Amino acid sequence: MTPSPRLVTVAACQLGAVHLADSRQDVLKRMFSLLDQASEQGVKLAVFPELALTTFFPRYLLKEEELDKYFDVEDPSKGGIEQSPNVKPLFERAKSLGIDVYVGYAERSLQSDGSHIDYNSSVYYSAHENKIVGKYRKVHLPGSVEPKTEPGAYQQLEKRYFRPGDLGFPAFRAPGLVEGALKKNSQSDGIQDSTGKGDPIIGMLICNDRRWAEAWRVYGLQGMEILCCGYNTTAFQTTSSGHAVDMSPEDAEDLVMQHHKLSCQGNSYMNACFSINVAKTGAEDGNPLVGGTIIVHPLGHIIKEAKTKEDELVVATIDLADCVRLKSTVFAFEKHRRPEHYHSIIERTGVIEPCLL
Amino acid sequence: MTPSPRLVTVAACQLGAVHLADSRQDVLKRMFSLLDQASEQGVKLAVFPELALTTFFPRYLLKEEELDKYFDVEDPSKGGIEQSPNVKPLFERAKSLGIDVYVGYAERSLQSDGSHIDYNSSVYYSAHENKIVGKYRKVHLPGSVEPKTEPGAYQQLEKRYFRPGDLGFPAFRAPGLVEGALKKNSQSDGIQDSTGKGDPIIGMLICNDRRWAEAWRVYGLQGMEILCCGYNTTAFQTTSSGHAVDMSPEDAEDLVMQHHKLSCQGNSYMNACFSINVAKTGAEDGNPLVGGTIIVHPLGHIIKEAKTKEDELVVATIDLADCVRLKSTVFAFEKHRRPEHYHSIIERTGVIEPCLL
Repeated sequence: MTPSPRLVTVAACQLGAVHLADSRQDVLKRMFSLLDQASEQGVKLAVFPELALTTFFPRYLLKEEELDKYFDVEDPSKGGIEQSPNVKPLFERAKSLGIDVYVGYAERSLQSDGSHIDYNSSVYYSAHENKIVGKYRKVHLPGSVEPKTEPGAYQQLEKRYFRPGDLGFPAFRAPGLVEGALKKNSQSDGIQDSTGKGDPIIGMLICNDRRWAEAWRVYGLQGMEILCCGYNTTAFQTTSSGHAVDMSPEDAEDLVMQHHKLSCQGNSYMNACFSINVAKTGAEDGNPLVGGTIIVHPLGHIIKEAKTKEDELVVATIDLADCVRLKSTVFAFEKHRRPEHYHSIIERTGVIEPCLL
Repeated sequence: MTPSPRLVTVAACQLGAVHLADSRQDVLKRMFSLLDQASEQGVKLAVFPELALTTFFPRYLLKEEELDKYFDVEDPSKGGIEQSPNVKPLFERAKSLGIDVYVGYAERSLQSDGSHIDYNSSVYYSAHENKIVGKYRKVHLPGSVEPKTEPGAYQQLEKRYFRPGDLGFPAFRAPGLVEGALKKNSQSDGIQDSTGKGDPIIGMLICNDRRWAEAWRVYGLQGMEILCCGYNTTAFQTTSSGHAVDMSPEDAEDLVMQHHKLSCQGNSYMNACFSINVAKTGAEDGNPLVGGTIIVHPLGHIIKEAKTKEDELVVATIDLADCVRLKSTVFAFEKHRRPEHYHSIIERTGVIEPCLL
């Protein structure tokens, strides 16, 4: 039995480099331009990168006061990121075009005692509801708290500037994203939708999260159909001392790209979901970031890929019914998973090796 | 700091079709031939497929008495599979050549009350110790208990013939597999080896297990350096009613092969381990199995791949020190994992979707 089509046109909104000197207004203008192009192509969901609004500042060792300008402050008593003057215009434009938006940003969350906690966050704005319907705080922060001390070491200070996300991996539905979705009624109240006909089920990750199968699986166990993931990924790998692995720049970038694709394609396949993986790319003040913005099919292949390292719209019309085949056979979790043997996944953080013989 | 090399030459011993009419003697002879060739190339570890000794019988609906001949009986009072007259000669040959062996077989485990429990199993035979040092029973059994009833449906009856494995995913060390491995002494007694200098840490999976990130991760959390996995994988996909998905045989096989490679490469990368993935392939009495025997590097790329769908030795000299780079950076689990957000991986088996809106 072939499931009914549930079509939606989506866009990965790749951004080229955002330099230190670029103003937030400059960046917003570029995002508007991508949204406008998306609208012309009938797009209903636009996915922007991680920390889309500024340069990737965790590559710099910064003082507290230098950090401020990269963050968007959220005061829970006044509302969330949708109130930030820096971001509000993006949602207003999206509203006027009828496009849902995923966007990554640096969140400064004000606490009731006046202090603040900072996260590397993303939100999902629903044009249909004119509000944010999903929020995620990056769980798998790469890098280190303390800067690497060896001369010439590459810095990755996300663990210094952000706290690991505290929201887990909360999937949610995107109202109105596909036509004719089944709605809650007196019959279905509180009953799970096993028909695959409700509003689409969305998951969000950020950058390094996409390499962690646990993150995808927690979403997979919520029936995720579309994973949105923005990233800023350095175009070379570093050793534990922070130096670039010794290979040519071309080989290094190839390797990073292979790992990016293996992660996105492998985990999309193993959870039978689409994924929209969106780069901030180009060289930010000389610091090269990989491109490789891709939209991936639940069967694991790449549907559409960016051709440049600049601002670029990557559009595909996807059919959420394509998730059904693997979700009902090879990856029918309820038939095949064996959680009684997975305990160590939550019972230990690091490696415990078998004893020496 | 570059870790010291820990070299070992390994072989994936791909088998071509084993037909219903082929005797166990015929198959053993072919396995001997592969072992002899392996020895000539300095191989120290030879990995054979799942259910290597017979045809892939779960594709047939069989009566109890017809099943017997496919199983090797293990009577715990008399020892394990190493006592089976069908398999003992393989280990004797391996002993004489100084080669460790992974081999898959159908295990009939006698119980003290005279009944038996059947598993799809593999063992790891150590030539150095002249005994079995690792045992695994397949956890993720595909297929169904009841045969598909629609005319022409393809049968996959592993869930009928086998019980899901009850041993979890126990990694173990392979004594003497690399030269000069650190041994237990009064100083290291009971202390974990974090130096990466002990005997190699091995994990075993069987066929469909390789698509399940949980299985790899439980091994990864034990510091696995080499994953051995044999498989019999049908060269087409089926719908939930058991019919081949509607595509050309070539396209269908390409798709199966892509999924095989995504699983092996993606999970090897995400756990920074080598994997030796070995097919039983060719057409068994007209039933096509994919090939694709591959040895995969911890950086995720394929080191060596089979060229045929027949008996074929795929040999590579690997350096276990190559596991260190990712295990100490991107995938330094103790620094980056966040088990507090992974609970649903063990708390639910199937999908629970977000409620309808």
